[in-house]
Amino acid sequence: MANMNFIDKLGGASKRNDSLLCIGLDPSMEKIPTFLHAAKDPIFEFNKRIIDATKDLVVAYKPNLAFYEAEGPEGLKSLMRTIEYIPASIPIIADAKRGDIGNTARAYARAVFDVFGFDAVTVNPYMGVDSIKPFLNYEDKGVFVLCRTSNPSASEFQNIGAKPLYQIVAEHAVTWNVHENCGLVVGATWPEEIKKIRTIIGEDMLMLIPGIGAQGGDLEKVVKFGTNSHGENAIIASSRGIIYAGKDRNFDEKVRDVALSLRDKINSLRH
Amino acid sequence: MANMNFIDKLGGASKRNDSLLCIGLDPSMEKIPTFLHAAKDPIFEFNKRIIDATKDLVVAYKPNLAFYEAEGPEGLKSLMRTIEYIPASIPIIADAKRGDIGNTARAYARAVFDVFGFDAVTVNPYMGVDSIKPFLNYEDKGVFVLCRTSNPSASEFQNIGAKPLYQIVAEHAVTWNVHENCGLVVGATWPEEIKKIRTIIGEDMLMLIPGIGAQGGDLEKVVKFGTNSHGENAIIASSRGIIYAGKDRNFDEKVRDVALSLRDKINSLRH
Repeated sequence: MANMNFIDKLGGASKRNDSLLCIGLDPSMEKIPTFLHAAKDPIFEFNKRIIDATKDLVVAYKPNLAFYEAEGPEGLKSLMRTIEYIPASIPIIADAKRGDIGNTARAYARAVFDVFGFDAVTVNPYMGVDSIKPFLNYEDKGVFVLCRTSNPSASEFQNIGAKPLYQIVAEHAVTWNVHENCGLVVGATWPEEIKKIRTIIGEDMLMLIPGIGAQGGDLEKVVKFGTNSHGENAIIASSRGIIYAGKDRNFDEKVRDVALSLRDKINSLRH
Repeated sequence: MANMNFIDKLGGASKRNDSLLCIGLDPSMEKIPTFLHAAKDPIFEFNKRIIDATKDLVVAYKPNLAFYEAEGPEGLKSLMRTIEYIPASIPIIADAKRGDIGNTARAYARAVFDVFGFDAVTVNPYMGVDSIKPFLNYEDKGVFVLCRTSNPSASEFQNIGAKPLYQIVAEHAVTWNVHENCGLVVGATWPEEIKKIRTIIGEDMLMLIPGIGAQGGDLEKVVKFGTNSHGENAIIASSRGIIYAGKDRNFDEKVRDVALSLRDKINSLRH
């Protein structure tokens, strides 16, 4: 299972858990329940409870590397424990947004795929195809290229040009999808752009859509415009809205309640 | 000295070492001299020898995080040892090319500045000012925004638009330079773009210019167009061309020879 390709693993988890919901595992020490601070590895302990509470509800987990790097080398050990703990049948996406010259991108790809064992990664297109190819060359892994991001200043550069940059990125990504392992990151906060991008990339390419929950994306439009005509090929990600749903010892019950309700709401909109 | 601000530290090192040369500390296990493989921490041992051999020649060191992440949590320990070993009077730039939504960018900034103790960082502008501000808010630290990168596919997106994207990024960066801690990354492989960018940003902003050496940038034009009218405010970075200059037990002597000759060549062009 560990060596199963990303797309098959994703399809399996989606079917088994009847889900498009991806949970962002983005723990920060100042936000996790304080009773966990006494644990040997509080970050891992926090993730473990969330995984136990939601592993039958999700299509994928998505740890953002920033929150582990912020704890130094020990934080990366917490990340490795987390990856090991997640059932091998659920794909894990490294939210890393990496991008560098080819020689360096190869080192990043080795880090996320070979060393940490992720099934997929997010990458930044600013430096062009050179910086993305070393990831795409791992044919069994998924690569999500930032297209139109969820944050308020997304349009500052992504909308530059007569044809906006984000649309050009989407067009190029279609040509990069030779091994059928390339997808796009599109923020839930921009439903019209989601619609436009789905038109550009067609039915088959995956969209990873963060920005519901804390960032306030419109779920109905996200599901309507983001999925293909079969209600598939979108991964809808929420992090803070789920993982910080509770503060006390039974926080994981609240986490499950919110995740379950969100998964079901997404399903009611796509079926 | 450890708390000295980046700009002052950079100015001090530049004056003391009469240098614009920055060495990229980008070690990979398959390329470092094989006799070092027996060391307890080969990556650190490699860097240590390079630092000992060049610390009177450089304006800064620039470790690229990819090469440390590729060794897992242990690699980040090698990085921390390296940062600790570099004399506190020489600034250290994290070549990280990070970029994420504000909440996440804050975690990345904490990682590079507070946890690892870097003096400066490189960041990716694709997501706009939200993603860069959390770094700029560290007023004592330097922030280099990718503008026109050194790799072959740099123009794929950076030249989009009637006014090319990279020029718009440069213009925005000027407005982000409120604390005088914002600079730009411009590849040595594009001398005409360096010239254009120096015109946009004026005399005072810093340019970090990688891509001489292994990537083949034209040093004469880089110095001529990259520095300001006083032959200053450019940091010229080389990595593979210097750190892999030797293969045997006295590799550090060859490293010093190449670094010395490059520093002097840069100086002969700027004076």
